[in-house]
Amino acid sequence: MKILNKAVLPAGFLASGISCGIKKSGKPDLALFYSQTPATPACLFTANSIKAAPLLLNKLYLKKGGSVRAIIVNSGNANCFTGKAGIKDAEEVVSATVAALNNVGTGFKPVPTKINQENVLVNSTGIIGKRLPVSKITSALPRLVKELSSQGILKAQKAIRTTDTFDKAATIEFNIGGKSVSICAVAKGAGMICPNVATMLVFIFTDAAISREALKKALSSAADKSFNCITVDGCMSTNDSVMMLANGASGARLLPGKSLSIFEHALDEVCLSLAKLVVRDGEGISKFIEIKVYGAKNFHDARVAALSIANSNLFKTAVYGENPNFGRIAGAVGACGIEVQEKDLLIKLGPLGKKDVHVDVSLGRGKGSAVVYTTDLTPEYIKINAEYN
Amino acid sequence: MKILNKAVLPAGFLASGISCGIKKSGKPDLALFYSQTPATPACLFTANSIKAAPLLLNKLYLKKGGSVRAIIVNSGNANCFTGKAGIKDAEEVVSATVAALNNVGTGFKPVPTKINQENVLVNSTGIIGKRLPVSKITSALPRLVKELSSQGILKAQKAIRTTDTFDKAATIEFNIGGKSVSICAVAKGAGMICPNVATMLVFIFTDAAISREALKKALSSAADKSFNCITVDGCMSTNDSVMMLANGASGARLLPGKSLSIFEHALDEVCLSLAKLVVRDGEGISKFIEIKVYGAKNFHDARVAALSIANSNLFKTAVYGENPNFGRIAGAVGACGIEVQEKDLLIKLGPLGKKDVHVDVSLGRGKGSAVVYTTDLTPEYIKINAEYN
Repeated sequence: MKILNKAVLPAGFLASGISCGIKKSGKPDLALFYSQTPATPACLFTANSIKAAPLLLNKLYLKKGGSVRAIIVNSGNANCFTGKAGIKDAEEVVSATVAALNNVGTGFKPVPTKINQENVLVNSTGIIGKRLPVSKITSALPRLVKELSSQGILKAQKAIRTTDTFDKAATIEFNIGGKSVSICAVAKGAGMICPNVATMLVFIFTDAAISREALKKALSSAADKSFNCITVDGCMSTNDSVMMLANGASGARLLPGKSLSIFEHALDEVCLSLAKLVVRDGEGISKFIEIKVYGAKNFHDARVAALSIANSNLFKTAVYGENPNFGRIAGAVGACGIEVQEKDLLIKLGPLGKKDVHVDVSLGRGKGSAVVYTTDLTPEYIKINAEYN
Repeated sequence: MKILNKAVLPAGFLASGISCGIKKSGKPDLALFYSQTPATPACLFTANSIKAAPLLLNKLYLKKGGSVRAIIVNSGNANCFTGKAGIKDAEEVVSATVAALNNVGTGFKPVPTKINQENVLVNSTGIIGKRLPVSKITSALPRLVKELSSQGILKAQKAIRTTDTFDKAATIEFNIGGKSVSICAVAKGAGMICPNVATMLVFIFTDAAISREALKKALSSAADKSFNCITVDGCMSTNDSVMMLANGASGARLLPGKSLSIFEHALDEVCLSLAKLVVRDGEGISKFIEIKVYGAKNFHDARVAALSIANSNLFKTAVYGENPNFGRIAGAVGACGIEVQEKDLLIKLGPLGKKDVHVDVSLGRGKGSAVVYTTDLTPEYIKINAEYN
């Protein structure tokens, strides 16, 4: 099982990415992911109680329990805090996507079954509180559909970026019952990164066949150890989504037992790899920090303690200054709400001179452990976020 | 009832502040507060489960239920995360204070009753994780005791400062049954400021006579609306303490009813005034931000929502950049864990061009409200905390 740091779409998936004019820079800002056959979806959404309009719509569609054929994504505008108008805007984007797919076709094969509204998911990322420029998207959709191809994923991954400075992708291939299966994932995210889910969009595709329940369980479990273990600035986004589609095009069917275990392990790897890339692209960072907490009562407690360190501005600025201030680590652990005793606390802080920094903390209270990834806090982060609008 | 922004000690209190050599800069770093008669204490300590050695010792002394005669405070070293040795160090400082008070005397009147260990409280603030330079303190103590005077409060307030850029004090005078009573408070604190209690030391003195229970209740209530409503960087300290002494020297005795209400109101004013000063001195800040949340179910919910905004790095950097990004306010409210509906949310963001910024948020769910004070996040904050050691 080998992981590639690039996107290679599994069988039966196509994608495309173009510029439709939302971003003033003229950079790509509209992406489409498409499955040639109906795919089983699994989705995780932000825990923020203010959810962007597209998330509300996706939740509605997913409730119907049907399959998913496409995901339409724009960057440059989050369509969040836009009220009922925002939901109508998102619906309009979905309608235009459905029409373009049904009428234009993908150029590969005729669409086998008519696509309905609820077979299309929609995502937006970018500035909050401004109306989505719907007509820019709808008028670009026929062109976006025409450009669908398996290589199109390389353009799609660029079109979902906001302040990202590099593409984030991972692909893993493995065998299930003699059949070659793959999982491919792309992500955007660089700031407003905090667990449940980190502020980002992640799209994951596999050509395995798997039940809706098993897919959801595998994705939740993988996210818990990856996307829910990263933080850049402790700010939880309104648009975070992790979306996975499984279309079965490989012919491999995953059933409880060994084949499902292999798949789950592969998905864990892909998610962790992407989560780390999101942190590495943290806005304005100069350090990538791995915080291991062990000796906790359980995984949950260990993660709470690790995130408390990771979200401490005092810890983050100390790492930025290459200032080995372990007192700030102790202070952050003590503030996390979990009972700890000073005498049980063991803190190891690796050398700060390098880009990658390691912190090991033992709480001396049990066998639970967790690893959290974060960044330092730099003047550059402030500059980026003071000016972003 | 008029509030003064300076320290004027109530009857029967003396103070002094000198430099004993803990701070390399040679600035004052040792303060003593003294009551000529046994005073009733009330204390609040940090909610951080890692508590600095002096806090552990104070808790032990206070449990004995006796009166308090003096508070000894050093700055430049927090005596935190120093293990059993740290507690021994703090004890040694208390012993030396007791000896100096009993042997040297205050120069005003003979000490009327012998002072014991448990009549002296001790505080430290500064760098975490380094042993307290005890001998510097103990050898300076006779000099510190000799310099006790009512004007000495002006020196004492300087000696408790760390990164503070100005003195923080408030005095209020009022009448109880024809007798003039006052409350005087001094504070230090500029960074590592987050509720329960904010990272700071506060010393409050009154010449009213009041029961231990009523004093504790009044102080808790005042702190809840002041020190627990401020945040600079969301980092909870290991040393936070609010200590109040009531010595009864005014002859006014506070009993349940009108006199107690007047006192409680005055204490609220003093605490709020000091809490705001701590925020105004926030490390490297360029803005003072007042966040009012109303329409919450209760005060607690309102404060949780207001603190979530106040601790959002994205909100704080937007204010620094004078960027009216109300989406980040909505995002922070949604992330606070309290159920809110986008349609009920009403956000007013005042002009950002001035030093004082006002944010009003209505949750549309009830009648609870809270006001929280915070700062922006600036490159200067990072510079200060990257270099502090």
